[in-house]
Amino acid sequence: MTTQVIVLNGGSSAGKSGIVRCLQAVLPHPWLAAAIDSLVEAMPASLRESDTGIAFTADGGVNVGSAFRELEAAWREGVAATARAGARVIVDDVFLGGSTSQERWQKALAGLDVLWVGVRCESAVAANREIARGDRARGMAASQAETVHRGVAYDLEVDTTHTESLDCARSIAARLG
Amino acid sequence: MTTQVIVLNGGSSAGKSGIVRCLQAVLPHPWLAAAIDSLVEAMPASLRESDTGIAFTADGGVNVGSAFRELEAAWREGVAATARAGARVIVDDVFLGGSTSQERWQKALAGLDVLWVGVRCESAVAANREIARGDRARGMAASQAETVHRGVAYDLEVDTTHTESLDCARSIAARLG
Amino acid sequence: MTTQVIVLNGGSSAGKSGIVRCLQAVLPHPWLAAAIDSLVEAMPASLRESDTGIAFTADGGVNVGSAFRELEAAWREGVAATARAGARVIVDDVFLGGSTSQERWQKALAGLDVLWVGVRCESAVAANREIARGDRARGMAASQAETVHRGVAYDLEVDTTHTESLDCARSIAARLG
Amino acid sequence: MTTQVIVLNGGSSAGKSGIVRCLQAVLPHPWLAAAIDSLVEAMPASLRESDTGIAFTADGGVNVGSAFRELEAAWREGVAATARAGARVIVDDVFLGGSTSQERWQKALAGLDVLWVGVRCESAVAANREIARGDRARGMAASQAETVHRGVAYDLEVDTTHTESLDCARSIAARLG
Repeated sequence: MTTQVIVLNGGSSAGKSGIVRCLQAVLPHPWLAAAIDSLVEAMPASLRESDTGIAFTADGGVNVGSAFRELEAAWREGVAATARAGARVIVDDVFLGGSTSQERWQKALAGLDVLWVGVRCESAVAANREIARGDRARGMAASQAETVHRGVAYDLEVDTTHTESLDCARSIAARLG
Repeated sequence: MTTQVIVLNGGSSAGKSGIVRCLQAVLPHPWLAAAIDSLVEAMPASLRESDTGIAFTADGGVNVGSAFRELEAAWREGVAATARAGARVIVDDVFLGGSTSQERWQKALAGLDVLWVGVRCESAVAANREIARGDRARGMAASQAETVHRGVAYDLEVDTTHTESLDCARSIAARLG
Repeated sequence: MTTQVIVLNGGSSAGKSGIVRCLQAVLPHPWLAAAIDSLVEAMPASLRESDTGIAFTADGGVNVGSAFRELEAAWREGVAATARAGARVIVDDVFLGGSTSQERWQKALAGLDVLWVGVRCESAVAANREIARGDRARGMAASQAETVHRGVAYDLEVDTTHTESLDCARSIAARLG
Repeated sequence: MTTQVIVLNGGSSAGKSGIVRCLQAVLPHPWLAAAIDSLVEAMPASLRESDTGIAFTADGGVNVGSAFRELEAAWREGVAATARAGARVIVDDVFLGGSTSQERWQKALAGLDVLWVGVRCESAVAANREIARGDRARGMAASQAETVHRGVAYDLEVDTTHTESLDCARSIAARLG
């Protein structure tokens, strides 16, 4: 079979979007990125400051409400339809709910050939990179580093702690059906 | 019926994304933005410099190739599926093909309640705003100002030449089913 | 004499940076932009959340502390030295202190030929554009629209309420010595 | 003596701006960033496409002309004046001219206490990170990795190939007078 969707899951500052860009550069066909960060940007600004939307706590926590979840669920259906219509898609997500998040994606992507990839990074290193990026709330990296992987099943895991994004991308590319 | 999708079509620098943000601010429910600019960003960087991708000519022209068109077609299906799954969506597009572009959207959005909105701006004014933005290729605004509307049928047209984005958004909001 | 520095003062969302880009496009020589927004970005992220730095209140107010003021004062000296060294400079500032802010610039720019420009925009229109931009705290535009001009003396005032940035830039360009 | 200016020199994608943000986070006083990239952004857009400005060749080369050099020289004077006025400044530059670039900075910063830091990164790794960033012309990292250090004298060198930005920042911080 031929892989139609690559799902990358990892905590904030684990290096997912760098891997996405490297995958887009090394894979022979064009792949479309579908990032949770882009979904958040596509939402009304008011949702970023609302109980029903998405809120970032001072210690790096992320709370999402009902309005956010509804748009997110519809987005997953949209990503799946994009793939079914023939576009290769790389999902770049943060499974705040661990295995529950994966189940939601599994339902949405039913029938598609999916490669599940865990993107890990040692918590302390991710926290350092969060400081170096300078555009993320402090504490998100550490708070998500382990929790997003809880109960999630992968075809492949990569670890950016000591491996460059491009090398991680090559490992993933080598596993594509 | 209840409007499920708002499609904004207009040339570069006509003020579409400003209207999108205003619509998101004034409409009572959360609406998701689906912008052609975001699609381009989600594509591999290499497509932005390839014959099969999207290329910007020195005089503001835009050429799109087969790889771009395939991803774009799949994206339209994804946007439609997102709306069918219950998210309200505002499409922010540039109909490079005029009525042909509209037909593609009509097919993809079949069965959904769509409000078609033309976003106009006098060519000279759009060209001025292109300079003021500073992040767009010079010439795109003028070259697209008229052509993107050729043969396109609208429920409503707004003109940003002398009307602020928020007022345009309010006119559109007043027409929602 | 030959104008060496253009100082634009106006409230948030009055359209200053658009005018800067248009000035850079229409003026025959290269002019360097020196924007207060760029200064804020050049400061440590921690100053954006500190009593001694710069803080934005929920209603659009801006509070600056001692650390911010010290860096800002040094920055003004730097801008003046840049101009004295031969670069033409366009300052893009928000005179939170009105005439007091102007006096500080006058001291720093002593001996240089300066064109003082007030950039006005009706409060309600600036507030609308703030919504359309989507990247500014709500309320800043309205709260600053009048106050930043208090007691400030200008060589020229432009008003973006009904005039495009490029036309404002042309009026300014026509006044250069 | 007390260090007043830290000058970081290194090739594109060597990791300088990440180190700047980490330095700003770990140093006890507020330090201002002065980056060559910000200077380029402050220039007229037309200079980015002009023989007298700055041009990027398809293979990652960078050509700068007379207008660019004049603004750059004035900028160095401005940075020096900012430091003399009391602000601690971190310069983030790419010495395209190697030792010649350093001499220009030495002249401008005369009388100030400067810490000269070389930021190195193995060429292949920097090239990989360039792909992962996705916003830089391909080839710049490799073409600059060695040349920018030619003949330059440092107080300290850090290497981001196997060391995180925050650890590099801590090494630099430990050397401040």
